Amino acid sequence: MQLTEAEQAAMHRALALGETARGRTSPNPPVGAVVLDEDGTLAGEGVTAPAGGPHAEVVALAAAGAAARGGTAVVTLEPCAHTGRTGPCTEALIAAGIAKVIYAVDDPNPLAAGGSDALREAGVTVVAGVNAIEAASGALRAWLHAVSSARPFVTWKYAATLDGRVAAVDLTARWISSAVSRADAHALRAVVDAIVVGSGTVLADDPQLTVRDGDDKPVEHQPLRVVLDRRHRVPQSAQVFDNAAETLVLDTAVPRFALKALFDRGVRHLLLEGGPTLAGAFIEARCVDEVIAYLAPTLLGDGPSALGHAGVGSLDEAVTLDVDSVSRLGEDIKVVARPVWAEQTAGER
Amino acid sequence: MQLTEAEQAAMHRALALGETARGRTSPNPPVGAVVLDEDGTLAGEGVTAPAGGPHAEVVALAAAGAAARGGTAVVTLEPCAHTGRTGPCTEALIAAGIAKVIYAVDDPNPLAAGGSDALREAGVTVVAGVNAIEAASGALRAWLHAVSSARPFVTWKYAATLDGRVAAVDLTARWISSAVSRADAHALRAVVDAIVVGSGTVLADDPQLTVRDGDDKPVEHQPLRVVLDRRHRVPQSAQVFDNAAETLVLDTAVPRFALKALFDRGVRHLLLEGGPTLAGAFIEARCVDEVIAYLAPTLLGDGPSALGHAGVGSLDEAVTLDVDSVSRLGEDIKVVARPVWAEQTAGER
Ligand SMILES: NC(=O)c1ccc[n+]([C@@H]2O[C@H](COP(=O)([O-])OP(=O)(O)OC[C@H]3O[C@@H](n4cnc5c(N)ncnc54)[C@H](OP(=O)(O)O)[C@@H]3O)[C@@H](O)[C@H]2O)c1
Ligand SMILES: NC(=O)c1ccc[n+]([C@@H]2O[C@H](COP(=O)([O-])OP(=O)(O)OC[C@H]3O[C@@H](n4cnc5c(N)ncnc54)[C@H](OP(=O)(O)O)[C@@H]3O)[C@@H](O)[C@H]2O)c1
Repeated sequence: MQLTEAEQAAMHRALALGETARGRTSPNPPVGAVVLDEDGTLAGEGVTAPAGGPHAEVVALAAAGAAARGGTAVVTLEPCAHTGRTGPCTEALIAAGIAKVIYAVDDPNPLAAGGSDALREAGVTVVAGVNAIEAASGALRAWLHAVSSARPFVTWKYAATLDGRVAAVDLTARWISSAVSRADAHALRAVVDAIVVGSGTVLADDPQLTVRDGDDKPVEHQPLRVVLDRRHRVPQSAQVFDNAAETLVLDTAVPRFALKALFDRGVRHLLLEGGPTLAGAFIEARCVDEVIAYLAPTLLGDGPSALGHAGVGSLDEAVTLDVDSVSRLGEDIKVVARPVWAEQTAGER
Repeated sequence: MQLTEAEQAAMHRALALGETARGRTSPNPPVGAVVLDEDGTLAGEGVTAPAGGPHAEVVALAAAGAAARGGTAVVTLEPCAHTGRTGPCTEALIAAGIAKVIYAVDDPNPLAAGGSDALREAGVTVVAGVNAIEAASGALRAWLHAVSSARPFVTWKYAATLDGRVAAVDLTARWISSAVSRADAHALRAVVDAIVVGSGTVLADDPQLTVRDGDDKPVEHQPLRVVLDRRHRVPQSAQVFDNAAETLVLDTAVPRFALKALFDRGVRHLLLEGGPTLAGAFIEARCVDEVIAYLAPTLLGDGPSALGHAGVGSLDEAVTLDVDSVSRLGEDIKVVARPVWAEQTAGER
């Protein structure tokens, strides 16, 4: 079905709205929605509220009010048909008198799916799959992956020298990368649900692991801080235990157990910030979905390498990456890539 | 002085000719020369012949014959005024009746300098410094650096995984990088005078260290193969001792001593091909002038890192690089950079 210009513009707006909700909606997905009135004029828009609050469609409907009657709802994700903490969105759309629903990505969540069928049964015109690839590789990417694999999407981020060192031999690691890379990496924290480090990193660097504003003050909304510390080596005086954000200590050393616990707490996108030992354990367990490397134009020749033991014994067992982008960030080189877990089948997950 | 279009075109041609001579002229510089007749028409061109043979200007004059009289010589380097294995170029230019000489870079060699003065004294118009930066950063770069520092220009080249490993833990290293990176790295060998490796690399990889053609057969002109093997660990059966090219074993472990010996043999551009131990020794001795890294989109987590101990104890002692270029080569990332030896003064050399 051919979309009108207004409908296409509404989808672009919905996609942009979805981006703004990243890191704040889990366990719900960061969705954007726009309501057009009967004439195709913008009547209301919305994003998913923090968990427990209304979904994007409901926010947009509320903003549109009576103008929604006979109108069109444009959403980045298939409206849900189940009653979670809020009522089903399909019912809200039908009750508001929406005549047409356009959405990007089908909901893979078996509990929430069936939204489009419910809408069609109520006589609503449904157009699915509009800008689906864009939506699925954008704000919804981590959530979609998490829901279909039943564990959080894991982004492993590190800063290394050109020779792959993440710290000098005396374990000094601040600052390997340039200020612009650090700002970029910092921005990542704002769009994830949790930041994970190993006890080694806390003991070596004593990081605060918070999202901070221009004045270096922690902002209000913070991701969960997670320390994997099975031997309880991290003292209570560590900065990670200050009251700037919530902190969870897990005493498991098995990545999949840690990820299960975090998924059950609602974490859908997790930022693995190191160090090399933990990164090695996550790579060995095939629990890394995205790699973001900041390579500084420096050489150390000693010190820990970015990735510790990951169970790779020979060159033909090397983990292969698909490179998404290579860019310059100030003096540094930023590489974004995805591990290709060749032999993994659905059953292994 | 404003150049004519023909003169400018002749300089571009001379620069291109100089590029073709790389790797074949040492200890002489790879120079390109063009002779225009009195009317500005191309009369002859030449490049430096292999050592002992004529310089570029002399080759170009021979090609031009009588047409050189009253004409212009366009050269990438100041014509020499000294009698080496061949007579001075200035005399040849004067004898041929050249009226004007245009050149790019001043000769830094105290033995050869004074060419422009000699020409002016003989009534020849001299234009110096045309496209000087281009010439000095192109074919002449290594030679200029070598002559002014009295040691060969050193390009350190390596292929590593994204986590900086040059081999797996079982020391398998073939092939870390993609075919296109290997071809690119191979092409480097054709433009240098010598390839240096440590005994560890010969023992682990048994490389042939030759320039090979499309059929993988060694070509005729080969750089010198150099193995640093102070403990005579490399057996005579190693491929590096086959008769495809000349091989030199040095039993020094001090980079500056090795470089001195190679400079005295006429080596001006040297390719350091590893491994990490030797690279560390060269970096620690500040004997690396260019770094070329091929980073493959793979992860190993174990195995030797690209750079071994280089005397860097802390992050603030890290070696800083100026990045010349970052490019994609097939799936790989190619980084070309120059170490910045901040504290180095001329006296330390
Ligand atoms: N440049 C960067 O991007 C960056 C980022 C982070 C860290 N670093 C540097 O890395 C260094 C710290 O390295 P690291 O490897 O010691 O840090 P790490 O990976 O953060 O911590 C390692 C420790 O975590 C515990 N651990 C928890 N789960 C584990 C598992 N599944 N497998 C193995 N260990 C597990 C282990 O301690 P227990 O046995 O006690 O449980 C282990 O010793 C520091 O110098 C730091 O500055 C650099
Ligand atoms: N991917 C790549 O680009 C690449 C390139 C080369 C090598 N590699 C890999 O690197 C590994 C070999 O590493 P490596 O570090 O053993 O090789 P290496 O650096 O080639 O050789 C090291 C040896 O060279 C000798 N040596 C000579 N001069 C020295 C000096 N100034 N300082 C220290 N040692 C000096 C030492 O042996 P003595 O004490 O006996 O003199 C030392 O053990 C292999 O696995 C190989 O596959 C990878």
